[in-house]
Amino acid sequence: MMNKHFINDPTDLVMAALKAAKYANPSVALDEVNKIIYRKSSSPDTVALVSGGGAGHEPSFTGFVGEGILRAAVSGTIFASPSVKQIYNCISQRAGANTGVLLIVMNYTGDVLHFGLATEKARALGLNVEMVVVGEDVGVGREKSGKVGRRGMAGTVLVQKIVGALAATGAGLSQTAELARLITRNLVTLGSALDHVHIPGTTGMQECVLEENEIELGMGIHNERGCRRMKISQVSRLINAMLMQLLDKSDKDRNYLDVKDHKEWVLMINNLGGVSPLELGGITAKVVDRLAAQYKVKPLRIYTGTFMTSLNGSGFSITLLRVVDTGLGPGKDMISLLDAAHETLGWTASVKPSTWASVKTSPPCPLEEFEQIPTSCLKMDTAHFSQIVSPGLQKLIAAEPLLTRFDTLVGDGDCGIGLKRGAQAVQAFISTGRVSSDPVSTISQLANVVEENMDGTSGALFSIYLNALVKALRDDSPGKTHADIGTWSKAALTAMHEMGRYTPAQPGDRTLMDALHPFLQTLHEKKDLTAAARSARRGAENTKGMMPRLGRTVYIDHIGDIPDPGAVGIAVLAEGLAGI
Amino acid sequence: MMNKHFINDPTDLVMAALKAAKYANPSVALDEVNKIIYRKSSSPDTVALVSGGGAGHEPSFTGFVGEGILRAAVSGTIFASPSVKQIYNCISQRAGANTGVLLIVMNYTGDVLHFGLATEKARALGLNVEMVVVGEDVGVGREKSGKVGRRGMAGTVLVQKIVGALAATGAGLSQTAELARLITRNLVTLGSALDHVHIPGTTGMQECVLEENEIELGMGIHNERGCRRMKISQVSRLINAMLMQLLDKSDKDRNYLDVKDHKEWVLMINNLGGVSPLELGGITAKVVDRLAAQYKVKPLRIYTGTFMTSLNGSGFSITLLRVVDTGLGPGKDMISLLDAAHETLGWTASVKPSTWASVKTSPPCPLEEFEQIPTSCLKMDTAHFSQIVSPGLQKLIAAEPLLTRFDTLVGDGDCGIGLKRGAQAVQAFISTGRVSSDPVSTISQLANVVEENMDGTSGALFSIYLNALVKALRDDSPGKTHADIGTWSKAALTAMHEMGRYTPAQPGDRTLMDALHPFLQTLHEKKDLTAAARSARRGAENTKGMMPRLGRTVYIDHIGDIPDPGAVGIAVLAEGLAGI
Repeated sequence: MMNKHFINDPTDLVMAALKAAKYANPSVALDEVNKIIYRKSSSPDTVALVSGGGAGHEPSFTGFVGEGILRAAVSGTIFASPSVKQIYNCISQRAGANTGVLLIVMNYTGDVLHFGLATEKARALGLNVEMVVVGEDVGVGREKSGKVGRRGMAGTVLVQKIVGALAATGAGLSQTAELARLITRNLVTLGSALDHVHIPGTTGMQECVLEENEIELGMGIHNERGCRRMKISQVSRLINAMLMQLLDKSDKDRNYLDVKDHKEWVLMINNLGGVSPLELGGITAKVVDRLAAQYKVKPLRIYTGTFMTSLNGSGFSITLLRVVDTGLGPGKDMISLLDAAHETLGWTASVKPSTWASVKTSPPCPLEEFEQIPTSCLKMDTAHFSQIVSPGLQKLIAAEPLLTRFDTLVGDGDCGIGLKRGAQAVQAFISTGRVSSDPVSTISQLANVVEENMDGTSGALFSIYLNALVKALRDDSPGKTHADIGTWSKAALTAMHEMGRYTPAQPGDRTLMDALHPFLQTLHEKKDLTAAARSARRGAENTKGMMPRLGRTVYIDHIGDIPDPGAVGIAVLAEGLAGI
Repeated sequence: MMNKHFINDPTDLVMAALKAAKYANPSVALDEVNKIIYRKSSSPDTVALVSGGGAGHEPSFTGFVGEGILRAAVSGTIFASPSVKQIYNCISQRAGANTGVLLIVMNYTGDVLHFGLATEKARALGLNVEMVVVGEDVGVGREKSGKVGRRGMAGTVLVQKIVGALAATGAGLSQTAELARLITRNLVTLGSALDHVHIPGTTGMQECVLEENEIELGMGIHNERGCRRMKISQVSRLINAMLMQLLDKSDKDRNYLDVKDHKEWVLMINNLGGVSPLELGGITAKVVDRLAAQYKVKPLRIYTGTFMTSLNGSGFSITLLRVVDTGLGPGKDMISLLDAAHETLGWTASVKPSTWASVKTSPPCPLEEFEQIPTSCLKMDTAHFSQIVSPGLQKLIAAEPLLTRFDTLVGDGDCGIGLKRGAQAVQAFISTGRVSSDPVSTISQLANVVEENMDGTSGALFSIYLNALVKALRDDSPGKTHADIGTWSKAALTAMHEMGRYTPAQPGDRTLMDALHPFLQTLHEKKDLTAAARSARRGAENTKGMMPRLGRTVYIDHIGDIPDPGAVGIAVLAEGLAGI
């Protein structure tokens, strides 16, 4: 359990979080005295959905206030119900509904009594108020939960989304309340957690309540104990146990929903707050796959995210809603109401009904094996190409001990070996007769050879360079059929400038650019390999004493004597190409 | 640091999470071989935005694939870049754009080189591809980050949302790339965390990297060190330090954005994954308030949520975007593009532009002090009312020692005191002459007296009962002017049934209902208080030996001898009312 927090004062924390709800959603206002988030304006002719409960479950319920879901939400302190007065003020002044107010409350004693008393106070005054209690947890079975019934969990959010959408259509109070009860009867939820959660401002709690290798099955949203503790083993074992508890017909103590032959379901995987989105995704996929394999259930909608938290609890819950006929006619079935537009920050699903409808019509495309080699109309003499390139490669291979020595003194020592491996691979390509008369095609293949044979940053950069050279040769090729030294030198310089998109290295930074830049610049200006190679060598020598600003140099004791090994490699290659 | 996980195999975890992205959003498909989430269908005439990076940052970036933001996202392993081949396959086969592909990549060496090489390979083949690198972290200043530049952080998501919306309008590749660069130049982000995050599948990491009272300022999204460690004190100190680092003009090493005289900003508070939504809200409000007070900055848009995680990192980041003219004309300003519709699960903001526009026009309503007392046309003799009620109260007060003894043996011992306190408060109300001749008004005020003077479950239930009695009297009152025993007994029974909405207790559960139910039933049937009181007493006696199914009984050793004290209290009250 993590018991460090940024904000340790719980009163300050809850009030600041309520302010944030207002800052992030301009359609809601905050009543600071009563800790109510409510819609600034809304139609008085629709039933107002109101909810609330302890803080620490965000986005439940302040995050669901907005067009299409709740009219208002009242917050208590952390994990404790708001007072009757707060709730009564919310009903009488903040819900702003002439048509009626429907309270949707989770089944916890404090909440039920406080919201219940506020309801009866409002009714005594002649206000049209109904209250529906949601309890759908199967963490504790019938025998243990007794007449108190099941606890309210994340499934409550599904009730609110669906009924909120119905209320927005102008449905009356009794119709919305009936739908809320119908959904509740078709709902099951089960939680699991790796540990208890720490409540800001409390002390004296032990570091970890669960053992290092334990999971609590049936964990509630206020650290409530579940039905048993399991050893952590495979997550699939945990998920099997959870689905069994949710759906097993032979479990006399539960068996709340009959899965058999029922085709239409909605699945919600809820983050208790502290599970990484990556892991919640992993859990979601495993639940979906198991539901299909074991229960033949393919949910019509899958919601995965953070809907009802237990602060930053390291756990999750699985909710299943059996989709049944609402009897309310077209457009008012459960799925349409789930898909209906809303303007809240807590209900994240924003997929349009038409997109859901198209699921089956657009299968993913199969992957083609796509390894196309670019071509051009340019031609070159393949023998001449090999005659120039091979001596460069040989000189570079031979320079490996020198480069390794330099790099061992100033860097991590792998420069010589890397260049040698790349040069040998290119040499093998040439000597097996794979050089084509199309320079675009040849350089493109060499880029792949370098990518596959050289590791790390310099391998990627050489390969980027060669690919950029291909593009530059192609771009320059229309109307040309012969790749002369002018074609090559211009394309080579362009490719070097393209490299600047991916590395900030420039001459003066003590990298291979100190040799490559003068080499290609001179080549372009003089169309003379020998002059260009001499520029490269001068550039490499100039790196002696140069302070590194990025690149391979990590030890600066020897920079006065030792040139940058990458730059030296370029100079060696250039001299080989020039035959000097 | 929490290093327990539900899924410990990182390969399995990443693949399952990718599947979940597909399950939850029907508009996207998964290429399992290349770990690409991509849109199933989209217009080939718009530029395709593509992104990606290591896993562990969800919803970045798979969660942003969908209409209006990304065309595709490629995932690596946890915290490691995808390979060149994956990215190249994504560009060439999954982006499906004839018009062009824009890669938006975060500034990390592996990502830049791999995405860069894939870009150049695709360009070598003649594909129209551009790449923009986003780096906006101010955790490390100019001197230390040097030419490598700033790291990419959550601000990248703002770039993608804005540019994705522009691409959807049909803008060309260079225009979208230019906008991405413009946004990047106007972006700063800074993170903070309470500790490092544990990577599933790794071992050997110490429990906590930071000290118990330390915060890392400038923490990256892969546990990278920031600029310094601070002692935890007030969160306001941390936020002041962070805003200073983001915006201080005199900080020569940073000073990326000039805040002076610039009015238009966007703020994003991003959860690194393991902060509770409650606490993230608290942090958000404090940042907003400080920005207004210290910098006169009132952001046009405030986004708070989980956009780019570091697994379940216990930290957050603050991003500020300076809103500048895009030069693209109406409807293509940064704010309009942020507000534009989308169909992704990661970008949660669903507030309509018209709602944002109305922010200033609808201030919250002030709270009225609303303590209305319901009235009716019913009349009663106030002296007669007091003559009946007072002896009941006196008997109940006198029974306190007996009730306390019973409750001490079977429950928590507070039953007698609670009833005595309630009875004394009602007695004080009567004896100060506040009983009105309207029974609806009188009972309504008594309900408030009970609510304010009795604690716990039974106080709430008595108050619920009295409020329900008010409503029942009112509902029965039209056409009546005199409250006779028939009026009272019918309303009293109706109110008892209303209580059933808030408590499951029924006769037989060993609660006060065992006396209340027969009392009111007999009263209604016989219109005779004495007979009713005798029924109440029989009901209370019957609780001897009755097993508790809910309510106050917690010790069952004495249930054979001791009746339920709540039921006895009702019987005593009833006998007092009847004068027996």
